[in-house]
Amino acid sequence: MKATFMYGAGDVRVETVPDPVIQQPTDAIVRVIRSCICGSDLHPYHSMAATEQGMPMGHELIGVIEEIGTSVTTLTTGDFVVAPFAFSDNTCSFCREGFHTACKHGGFYATRETNGLQAELARIPLADGSLVVVADMTDERSEFFPSLLSLSDVYLTGYHAAHMGHVQPGKTVTVIGDGAVGLSAVLAAKQLGAERIILMGRHKVRTDLGVEWGATDVIAERGREGIQQVLDLTDGEGSHIVLEAVGHMPAYEQAYGIVRPGGVISRVGVPQYEEAPIGFGSLFGKNITLTGGPAPVRAYLEQAIPQVLSGQITPGKVFDRTISIDDVPAGYAAMDAREALKVLITP
Amino acid sequence: MKATFMYGAGDVRVETVPDPVIQQPTDAIVRVIRSCICGSDLHPYHSMAATEQGMPMGHELIGVIEEIGTSVTTLTTGDFVVAPFAFSDNTCSFCREGFHTACKHGGFYATRETNGLQAELARIPLADGSLVVVADMTDERSEFFPSLLSLSDVYLTGYHAAHMGHVQPGKTVTVIGDGAVGLSAVLAAKQLGAERIILMGRHKVRTDLGVEWGATDVIAERGREGIQQVLDLTDGEGSHIVLEAVGHMPAYEQAYGIVRPGGVISRVGVPQYEEAPIGFGSLFGKNITLTGGPAPVRAYLEQAIPQVLSGQITPGKVFDRTISIDDVPAGYAAMDAREALKVLITP
Repeated sequence: MKATFMYGAGDVRVETVPDPVIQQPTDAIVRVIRSCICGSDLHPYHSMAATEQGMPMGHELIGVIEEIGTSVTTLTTGDFVVAPFAFSDNTCSFCREGFHTACKHGGFYATRETNGLQAELARIPLADGSLVVVADMTDERSEFFPSLLSLSDVYLTGYHAAHMGHVQPGKTVTVIGDGAVGLSAVLAAKQLGAERIILMGRHKVRTDLGVEWGATDVIAERGREGIQQVLDLTDGEGSHIVLEAVGHMPAYEQAYGIVRPGGVISRVGVPQYEEAPIGFGSLFGKNITLTGGPAPVRAYLEQAIPQVLSGQITPGKVFDRTISIDDVPAGYAAMDAREALKVLITP
Repeated sequence: MKATFMYGAGDVRVETVPDPVIQQPTDAIVRVIRSCICGSDLHPYHSMAATEQGMPMGHELIGVIEEIGTSVTTLTTGDFVVAPFAFSDNTCSFCREGFHTACKHGGFYATRETNGLQAELARIPLADGSLVVVADMTDERSEFFPSLLSLSDVYLTGYHAAHMGHVQPGKTVTVIGDGAVGLSAVLAAKQLGAERIILMGRHKVRTDLGVEWGATDVIAERGREGIQQVLDLTDGEGSHIVLEAVGHMPAYEQAYGIVRPGGVISRVGVPQYEEAPIGFGSLFGKNITLTGGPAPVRAYLEQAIPQVLSGQITPGKVFDRTISIDDVPAGYAAMDAREALKVLITP
């Protein structure tokens, strides 16, 4: 089969490799219907040291089950499934508490030990716990494929930000970042009833989708000027909730600059820093709550699928380019150059 | 009147100064019945640079109103009151959201601009918003004075930690610190229904009070060894909620070492640091929520007074020494030497 590997910054290759096989009785093999490139894939695309042995890439897919291990009981060949970006048993105490990304037996794709999902076939560990079936989904209903794929990571990562931030009716929410996750956070905040949604981003095509999804205000400025504009829009009080969908330090600094006393900063942009201000002058003095982390997509997936199929939400609109697997390297380049917001991959 | 001033590290003096007077029509003058020394007073006691002009000290009191300004409408002379450690209008949007320590018009005692409350008389700004009356309280019921005084700061600071940490039935809570705030956090966690309360502290007299108040386990070890003991007590999973009542970096590091994925660290020890780890390796990767700050005591005071008067809670047990105002310097020394847990001051 064909699969994607990264050999260093800017060096993405599609190679032919042996098909994956069942390794554990809890595995399933899935034929990939759609996969995609994630904003987080751009971090190694910028900084990865050159390597002899390529890293498998990709952690999002929808597909059809080709084969199941002998212990798999809730799935069968031919099932159409969504795979969350982390695999999990869905039964351990952390999963039961809704934090599947910390599953005691789970893990992540695209590591030295696991395969990537930007490929034609994928081995899914802990298949019963990880995969969620979409009933009656066929190629004739392919208009739903992008939105179903977005439930693998991007939309439900935005949803996680809003959920952990306790977005609710009457609240002012500010979203930092107009990437696919930030726009998804706007859509999720709207779904959860936010009264006002301020989107901080400066790419008009993107912020236009944010407005379509519920943003009531758009602020292009960053840093001190951006903070001042949020304060001006909120009677000097700041935002009840800030959803930080970037991961760089200036976005975090912006977040604590615009959050009101007693408010919440919810992060889903993977932090590109370890130490940051949290003392009296930043978080403590104003009783700010800091929350967020890798989204336990599995916890939210079953309720999101009917929202997609009913047309209540169309989160797949973040995909603005479709390529075949052979063109994945060009897809990375397009996202890196911000020519594409998010790239969808067909087999 | 007599009042307490600090002139530098270790240099506390009781001096005779002019009685305070009404400065604003919203002020009240209160005759102090009981005041006390706070653990946070020990920070300047350790580190304050020597100064010519002493800093007024103290931010906790119960007392009787002697005089009110012309705009004060809900209080009258002779009322017995509890003063939260911060004054606030109780009407601005931040107060209405329950964060009185961020009141738009409020502030703190014991600054260059305000008086301290370790004194015989005190000017209370924004008296209508700040003071809470305790009906029918007289010297004959003085057995309630210590617990009522504890509502000025220490107990409700512990309560704030538990409240912000969302302590509830079924949860495992770990309290870091066996000072008066830590012990108060144990009592508050018990009131909120915590199933298991692990107290990390190594002063047996103090942890004994913690056990009386609901601690189910006591761990004397700190650092890596203390973390391992909490993990051993929790099947390797960690604590749902950690209440951090110290404020030094090792306590914070201990907190993120023992909190389970998806858990909460709630801080009420004033951080003696500004930068700290919050990236993937500490908070983000495990979806840890960090919360807490200066306690909006005013928000919790009205519901706590009947709990004290009914005997449901006796948080005043943290006071293990009583002195007169003339002996306040010795009271600081006793708390600093850990000979006293918390020192109560009579006029």
